[in-house]
Amino acid sequence: MDFEEFRTRGKEMVDYITDYLKSIEQRPVYPAVQPGYLRSLIPENAPQQPDSFEDLMKDVERVIMPGVTHWQSPHFHAYFAAANSFPALLGDMLSGAIGCIGFSWVASPACTELETVMLDWLGKMLNLPDEFLAGTSSGGGGVIQSHSSVERAGLIAGIKMRKLPTDEKFSLRGETLKQALEEDKALGLIPFYLCATLGTTPSCAFDNIMELGPICNSENIWMHIDAAYAGSAFICPEFRPLLNGVEFSDSFNFNPHKWLLVNFDCSAMWVKKRSELIGAFKMDPLYLKHQHQDSGLITDYRHWQIPLGRRFRSLKMWFVFRLYGVKGLQEYIRKQVDLAHEFESLVRQDDQFEIVNDVVLGLVCFRLKGSNDLNEKLIQRINEMRKIHIVPCQLRDKFVLRFAICARTVESKHIQYAWQNIKEIAIDLQVGCQ
Amino acid sequence: MDFEEFRTRGKEMVDYITDYLKSIEQRPVYPAVQPGYLRSLIPENAPQQPDSFEDLMKDVERVIMPGVTHWQSPHFHAYFAAANSFPALLGDMLSGAIGCIGFSWVASPACTELETVMLDWLGKMLNLPDEFLAGTSSGGGGVIQSHSSVERAGLIAGIKMRKLPTDEKFSLRGETLKQALEEDKALGLIPFYLCATLGTTPSCAFDNIMELGPICNSENIWMHIDAAYAGSAFICPEFRPLLNGVEFSDSFNFNPHKWLLVNFDCSAMWVKKRSELIGAFKMDPLYLKHQHQDSGLITDYRHWQIPLGRRFRSLKMWFVFRLYGVKGLQEYIRKQVDLAHEFESLVRQDDQFEIVNDVVLGLVCFRLKGSNDLNEKLIQRINEMRKIHIVPCQLRDKFVLRFAICARTVESKHIQYAWQNIKEIAIDLQVGCQ
Repeated sequence: MDFEEFRTRGKEMVDYITDYLKSIEQRPVYPAVQPGYLRSLIPENAPQQPDSFEDLMKDVERVIMPGVTHWQSPHFHAYFAAANSFPALLGDMLSGAIGCIGFSWVASPACTELETVMLDWLGKMLNLPDEFLAGTSSGGGGVIQSHSSVERAGLIAGIKMRKLPTDEKFSLRGETLKQALEEDKALGLIPFYLCATLGTTPSCAFDNIMELGPICNSENIWMHIDAAYAGSAFICPEFRPLLNGVEFSDSFNFNPHKWLLVNFDCSAMWVKKRSELIGAFKMDPLYLKHQHQDSGLITDYRHWQIPLGRRFRSLKMWFVFRLYGVKGLQEYIRKQVDLAHEFESLVRQDDQFEIVNDVVLGLVCFRLKGSNDLNEKLIQRINEMRKIHIVPCQLRDKFVLRFAICARTVESKHIQYAWQNIKEIAIDLQVGCQ
Repeated sequence: MDFEEFRTRGKEMVDYITDYLKSIEQRPVYPAVQPGYLRSLIPENAPQQPDSFEDLMKDVERVIMPGVTHWQSPHFHAYFAAANSFPALLGDMLSGAIGCIGFSWVASPACTELETVMLDWLGKMLNLPDEFLAGTSSGGGGVIQSHSSVERAGLIAGIKMRKLPTDEKFSLRGETLKQALEEDKALGLIPFYLCATLGTTPSCAFDNIMELGPICNSENIWMHIDAAYAGSAFICPEFRPLLNGVEFSDSFNFNPHKWLLVNFDCSAMWVKKRSELIGAFKMDPLYLKHQHQDSGLITDYRHWQIPLGRRFRSLKMWFVFRLYGVKGLQEYIRKQVDLAHEFESLVRQDDQFEIVNDVVLGLVCFRLKGSNDLNEKLIQRINEMRKIHIVPCQLRDKFVLRFAICARTVESKHIQYAWQNIKEIAIDLQVGCQ
């Protein structure tokens, strides 16, 4: 494919993408395929000679689309949102074309420096304490990471990890931490790390970091705060109090790729003392050395992370922040929270159902009053119908349905549609059970 | 930005990208910026109100481009290539638009299944033993990983890692391994893992896996083969013998994002026994459970890797394999190897210089006959001139210059240009030293 053919095909792809997203509601949100469906639809081997672009795009519809769970559909309410916006897509196109690898400052200074400044912009949008910003003399700063689960990190590091019980709001409290520390120390263990969560995955609960923080500080325990989903909301002043206590933490992260319209992957992490992070992973072969590296003036992000290579991911952040503006992003968050409350109030109006969490942001946890079995049947039928897609969670001994506001294009009509759908299935199910 | 504005802006971006890549030679390959250059060029905070797309694109030229090291320039000969091709860019655009997260099979079946089949296609292109393929009953299979360095992996896992000496061709031999195993066992250590390299980063050297493999097998040591750069060449029958011995290994990886025209990131890894990999990282919260997960029919790739989320990266592989065809990819590799030999022969014709490695694929290691200091000065001036960009390496006690064939668009004229440039600087340098 030469330059001019790319010019043509690239524009055809822009049309395809625009039309896909514009008409996505008409596709079943959840695919009907069975395991192994794809292998039978394509040849056993790569072609020896090139195929045509037309044939390839026909196969996108024939082979790929029937097996796609459409995360960008306004009928998708599972997990949490996977951010997607036009500015981010444009930024990512440019990133792909530049095709630089940003493992060190010299490998592409713009890639490193835009990331540092975008993490400062974002940190200021969240009103993070100055110590977390790179553009100060405090020794802190931010970085884009690949996200993982803290339990997996514990497995890999070979660390004893302990899950602590939460209160009736699923919030970890200071007294519980204190007691656990005493127990552990009595056993001769050395507690050194706490991962507190703001906006848990099952129910969007918030640990009490105002209580936990001072304890961690006095016990010399590294406190990390994971606000993977909820963090995006903290750009709104009315939600920022949820982050109070971050000043006690050593590190903080959230995923703009969930709820801040920056496409996956973009997991933003800040530390107060970057020297402690960098020292842990440092590798310096000669082919990566450069004149500025020991100057203290530059950042070599490969020391901040496990992988070596890095895409130019801050471009999509820059595109999103500039083309939405802070006010545009705030409006977006507020609208989605309002939609969650709209769903919550529909559920509350129905005596058959109960709400199980405090609806603070965009997640509603609900269930049919009744057995876990009944609720398992309900979610199974909802997903079999393929009109909407949701996933369950377990809260204490209850099997619960999670309804998350996900796609950028969700409107009130989609909330009403989803509730209608759930209610009809619930009625059928209860009639069937009688 | 609404659908129709994206349709317009997306096409403008396609034009920008096409023009950028078409005229990339006219930009200095290596930027002249100083550390911290970018912060002074943009505001301290994200804008409150949206900026215009026109202003943003002006800033791409004003703020970003002056700080970009142009990895896709045919004057870029540093590190190894960062793959970039039009089919991969098109596949990635589609991946961004679909915006699904493929952590489990149900999260988007097409995302998981295309990856499995593409890794089989690629494995067959390399003529990997059947045990590595998923479409057999052997229990093997492939996955796209984020790549890291084995030394860093050792640091994280808290493992004692030992670097073994190589022979005069920088190749690890069986006798050396045997001796090291005996020494370690005598110390009460338990050797359990060997990482052999095909195509090392400094000099593209090849460990002798035909000797190492049987030793690892008889000693019950997991042998991993890392062919990060060289692996792409094994799709050509004439280079496939370099992979002989892979049948002894437990796992194998290479990076199509280096030399197989699939944009970063795409690090392909295969294992013979996927059950051993999956068991190490398994996490199963209820919100990720699904009906098929224990059926043995599906793959949940989140168990194969450290991060939780996954982009739909196999789309770009599919686009590249289909739009180039295996023959097109083989031609590409062969042409780049020929260009490396062209550079090698230019160096060999000049008595002032010496070649330091066996030029097998696309990397030429060379130096001025003379001191390390002289060669350090040479590379410094080359990079200061910004006409071409290369990086050094250390081979035993010698400071060596690495000349890698990188961009997809490199032609003979660029090789001649680079050599002319290097020679002129060397002459100046030697005159200056006299």
